Parts: sequence; structure tokens; C-alpha cells
Amino acid sequence: MHLESLKSCSSTKARAGKLRTDHGDIETPVFMPVGTAGSVKALSPEDLMQTGSQIILGNTYHLLLRPGMEVIHSAGGLHKFMSWKYPVLTDSGGYQVFSLERMNKISEEGVIFQSRIDGSKHELSPEISMDIQRSLGSDIVMAFDECTAYPASKETAQKSMDLTHRWERRSLKYFRETEPLYGHDQRLFGIVQGSVYPDLRKDSAKCLVDMGFDGYAIGGLSVGEPKEDMYAMTDVVTDLLPEDQPRYLMGVGKPEDLVRAVALGVDMFDCVLPTRNARHGILFTWDGPIAVKAAREKEVHEPVDKYCECYTCKNFMRSYLRHLFKANELLVYRLASIHNVHFYHSLMAAMRSSILEDSFSQFQVDFFNRYDIKRAGE
Amino acid sequence: MHLESLKSCSSTKARAGKLRTDHGDIETPVFMPVGTAGSVKALSPEDLMQTGSQIILGNTYHLLLRPGMEVIHSAGGLHKFMSWKYPVLTDSGGYQVFSLERMNKISEEGVIFQSRIDGSKHELSPEISMDIQRSLGSDIVMAFDECTAYPASKETAQKSMDLTHRWERRSLKYFRETEPLYGHDQRLFGIVQGSVYPDLRKDSAKCLVDMGFDGYAIGGLSVGEPKEDMYAMTDVVTDLLPEDQPRYLMGVGKPEDLVRAVALGVDMFDCVLPTRNARHGILFTWDGPIAVKAAREKEVHEPVDKYCECYTCKNFMRSYLRHLFKANELLVYRLASIHNVHFYHSLMAAMRSSILEDSFSQFQVDFFNRYDIKRAGE
Repeated sequence: MHLESLKSCSSTKARAGKLRTDHGDIETPVFMPVGTAGSVKALSPEDLMQTGSQIILGNTYHLLLRPGMEVIHSAGGLHKFMSWKYPVLTDSGGYQVFSLERMNKISEEGVIFQSRIDGSKHELSPEISMDIQRSLGSDIVMAFDECTAYPASKETAQKSMDLTHRWERRSLKYFRETEPLYGHDQRLFGIVQGSVYPDLRKDSAKCLVDMGFDGYAIGGLSVGEPKEDMYAMTDVVTDLLPEDQPRYLMGVGKPEDLVRAVALGVDMFDCVLPTRNARHGILFTWDGPIAVKAAREKEVHEPVDKYCECYTCKNFMRSYLRHLFKANELLVYRLASIHNVHFYHSLMAAMRSSILEDSFSQFQVDFFNRYDIKRAGE
Repeated sequence: MHLESLKSCSSTKARAGKLRTDHGDIETPVFMPVGTAGSVKALSPEDLMQTGSQIILGNTYHLLLRPGMEVIHSAGGLHKFMSWKYPVLTDSGGYQVFSLERMNKISEEGVIFQSRIDGSKHELSPEISMDIQRSLGSDIVMAFDECTAYPASKETAQKSMDLTHRWERRSLKYFRETEPLYGHDQRLFGIVQGSVYPDLRKDSAKCLVDMGFDGYAIGGLSVGEPKEDMYAMTDVVTDLLPEDQPRYLMGVGKPEDLVRAVALGVDMFDCVLPTRNARHGILFTWDGPIAVKAAREKEVHEPVDKYCECYTCKNFMRSYLRHLFKANELLVYRLASIHNVHFYHSLMAAMRSSILEDSFSQFQVDFFNRYDIKRAGE
């Protein structure tokens, strides 16, 4: 998988390109909304298209536990099951198993765990994760890794990284031995680990590039480490990844994180933040996030952002959104999510345009001059 | 207010017509989705339009308590506040006060009650209800009445009805002395009471027709009385109401109720049933309601109704809807509500067409032959 029409910024590591999949092209840099359980919370496929979503993420772990693979496979894969015609990326399931479940057994082979939903036993391994992602039919499949917990001693981080490398090699081997199930192509990304240790990160990047994946993710960040460590690790890793292949910073992040990481040469992002914050009444604008539930919005009969082109801003006032939140009206979770996802995509599109015009450095300065991180009073 | 282009069925009392308002025409018979707190639960104005909604109902009582009249008035009325460009009917607030609140005082003057939300004291009277509905700016305003509780002795029902008549006379007088606030016209409907006593219902209908309202509602039904009483009272009342004015059966009902009441000459209905049932996974089809959460739907990769033209049926399978319900995904409340509201409007449109073609009797036979009331296993 290659970034086509690649254009690079002359003063930062930012780049703009295009990824081709059998479900359509993806213009990068790109933000991927998270459809945890086969639905980007509160949004329909039509909403996603209208907000500018090009690719969404599905969580293998959640879909494995509910509805289960037999349902999604008999439905014809995840695209058909959720009625989404555009690209899908699925994670390997590893991250959630390590962070959410009571682990029964972790071994060289893989992981055995118990479902929180019904207590049933499940197994994940590189091979099983590949099988599941073949059943889901995602356009981009992630290798099975161990997300190193933070903080980790260098010894622990090294051990975890070595296991990840063995698991990723098995993922790649098994992926190559199997075929897509639904007539469209699938691609496999490797995941760089190494905690906050630059030399481990370098080793990991080199090791994975040697294996030869379709794209490379940077994992194990945004897990509690200082922001500056996250940027430093990203910077170290992107220096070593192939110029013409996609780079994906997993689980990131806030608008300001996206701008900084694009400057470090990242092409792809996913995060629950825009949808989760929306459901809590935190709405993003170019001036910073606002808390639309605040008393001061009670009679503000103006949209969240009067220049915003989303359905919410074109039709509804802050006073109404605030009222809907106070009344627990279901409509507001959708309206707020539409706005935030639209904002994220607008931010990515603006970065892409500035890269294509080679004015990204100026964009970055302007963005940080205007964007008030603390505006919502968080 | 007159029903234009009125066409009557030759063998039942069913009729089809058109009501003109400053926010557009309404083709009758019509079903009005309920937007209790300034939102038809889980649906946007765009969803409502696409499902075929011509007019929606707003609850004075709920809007009075939250967000309060000053917010809606400063927003420019309920249409602007909720971004709904088509007709709105508001109730008087009386029904909810009598059924939901701790009454502090009920007198000839009106009602004083305490808000469940914040304990604040509120007053409702014919004049206050008219003022509130002027502030809301609804196209159709309801007179302030006392909804007689069921069961009621004849003496109690008579007393309650007499009070209602005095309150409705005051509503009409005050309404005539006041002006619309937002440049569009408003119309006032009277409400017939009289519990399940045919002679009281007749007295009430005659008394209100003498006062001269723009339309007439049949109130105090669907409150626990036997279905046959509801139909008998509706039959008695519609015989006495002016042929060329709209008739509205309040709070009704299930699909089978709508068909029977249209046969008795009712033009307008409202009910929370389609949206509430949707949120509980009960979806309506021409073969009866189905329980989409049932285990038997787990791998049914077909729409709820393969001939249905709603967004939900055109895009999603029962297996997916069931999964979303099991996973508590917000999207499903909207998808299910879209389907049910669309079904209700399709049912009304089918009745209207059959009346215009003078085949309503046959429609009724066909409907009841096919529609299995108990299909969802309720």
C-alpha cells in the first residue's frame, strides 16, 4: 500500500497523499471516527458521509464479543452489516483485551480471556486475530501486538516489544497464507512499540520495516505518558518509516495533538474524543472547545460556530442544544457528534490543503494563535 | 379553520381533506408525532420531513418547566427554537398537570402546581395557557380543559365537564382578545369531554360547537376505558361536530385504533406510541408489530419490511438493529423511530388514498385481515 500523489511540506515533516482501497480512496492526513461496536456512536452511515468521513475504525474485540463473528460473517462482513460502503480499518483486539478484560492466561501463543458481557471464554492470538479480521472484511487489518502499559521499565518494555515483534511476524505470515472472504482486498499494518525509549522505538521501527507491512502504526502512545514523550517518540519513529507508505498514530487525539503529529509526518489518526466529548456537551470550534451545557448558553440563540457548514450549525442554536442536553433528549447526542466529527474532518482537510499549497507552517502558527485549549474551562 | 377539498367515504364516516396553516398545508387524516420537550424523541426535523410528518405536537407543560417560556420567546417561538418549518399543534398543559404533578390547588380560577424538576411553583389557567401558547407560536392552540379521570361517576364527570366548558369559554374569549406574536396566524380548538357517558358527550359537543372553535378535539379517551367505549364515544361526538371542520382524537393510538377512528370520522391523531415502542424495539409492519430484539432475529439479514421505503429499511437489517439494541447503541433509537413514524404516516396516507378513491371500506377489511395485533407476542 502506497501513498500516491505524495506532497511534502518544505519546512516540517507534514505530508499529503492518497490511499487507494477497494472501497474508495482516502485523502491523507485523515481522521478515522471510531465505530466501536459496529456503529460510530449516535451517527448513521449517512451522517458520517455528510460530515466528511472517508474511513472508520471497527473494534475487533467488541465485535467478537457482540454480536460475534458468525453473525457478521453470515451478514457478509462488517461493511454490509453496518451498511457502510467506504473503507474500514479494524484493530487487532489486543489493546482492549489487555486494558479491559480479566486475563486468564497470557503466553507466547496468545491470550485467553473471559467476556465481561456473558463470562464466556475467548482466545486471541496473531492467527485468530487475522481470521477474525478476515471475517470482518476490513480494508486495513492491524497486526496482533501487545500494547505496552505505561509506565514500564526499559527491561519490561523490551520484553513486551520482543513479544510484539514475534506476534507481528506470525500475523504477517498467517495473513499472507489466507485470502480475503468477500472479494475485496485487505492490507496489513504493523505496529511499532517500545514505550518511551527512543532506542527501543528505533529498533521496533527497523524490525517492522524489515518484515515489510503495507503500512505502519505507532502504538503504545496516548496511554498516560507526558505529551512531549508522545511527540518525541512519534518524531523518532517517522524518521525511520518508509516515505511512501502510510503512518498511523493510534488513539490520538485532541485537535492540537493532530496538528502537532501531522507536522511530525503522521497520516492517519483515530480517537473516540470527538464523539465522546460531543455526548458530554464539549463541542470543538476553531477558537477552542466550548461547553454548550453551561448556563451562559441558555439564551444564546446562535449556532456553535456560525461559519460551520455542518447540519447542526446550519439548523440549531446553542440555546436549543443546551436545552436538549438538560432534557436528556436523544437527538442532541447525534447533533453534537455530527458537529465534532465534522470539525475534526475540517481540521484534517485544512491541514491537507495547506500542505498541498506548502503553507502548513503558517497554518500551524495560525491554528495555535487562535485555538484556546482551555476555552471550555476543563 | 375549514377542511378543504373534503371528500367523504360513501359507506363509513371516514373523510379526507386539507387544512391550511401559515406553515403549510396538512392533508388529513393525519398523524402528529409528539415532540414533548421540543424534540420528537431521537428524530431531527429532517428525519421528520423524510418520514412524511406534516405537523408535530409540542407539550406546553414540558416546555413551560424546561427550558421555560422566556427562552423560547427570545428564540422567536417554538418553530425557530427547534428548527421546524412546518405546522405545530400545542396542547394546553392541563392534561400533564393533572396526570403528572402534585397539585397544590385546583380552583375555578385554574391550577397551581409544583415542578417535578426544580420544585418551583407554576400556575395554569385558561388565560395563562393561551399566553403560553401565544409565546410558543403554535399553529393550532388547544383550549384549557380538565381531562376527566377514568373511571368517574356520572356526577363527577358532569361537574368536570361543566368546569371544562367554563374554562374553554374563557380560553376562547382570551384567545380572541390577544394577538399572535410572530406574524403567523394561530387557530384554537375546543375539547369535548364527558367521560364514557353518551349524553354528557352530546351535551359537551353541542356546547362547544355553540361557542364556535376552529376545530374540535375529543379528549378524555384512551385513559383506561374499554376500547369499545372509546369508539362509542367517538362515534357519538363526530355525529354532532360540524362536517367541514377538523376533528382530533387526542392521545390515540395503535394502528388498529387509527383505522377504526378514521372510519368514525376523525381527521387528526397524536400519540407517543410509535416513538416509544421504537425505543423498546417494537417495530410496526403491515403484518403487525415485530419485536426486533428477539433471539430469532439474530441472523435475520433482512430489513424489518422489505417493501418499506424508510431510511432504516432501505439500509439496515434486523440482525444489525437487534445487535445495536443489545449493545445499547444510540443509533438504533433513531433508526427504529424513523421506521415507526414512517409506518404511521404510510398508514394515514393509505387511508387517505382509499377515501379519495372511495375504497376505504375495502381498505379496512384488508387491513384487519392482514394486521396481526399480537404478532410481537406482547
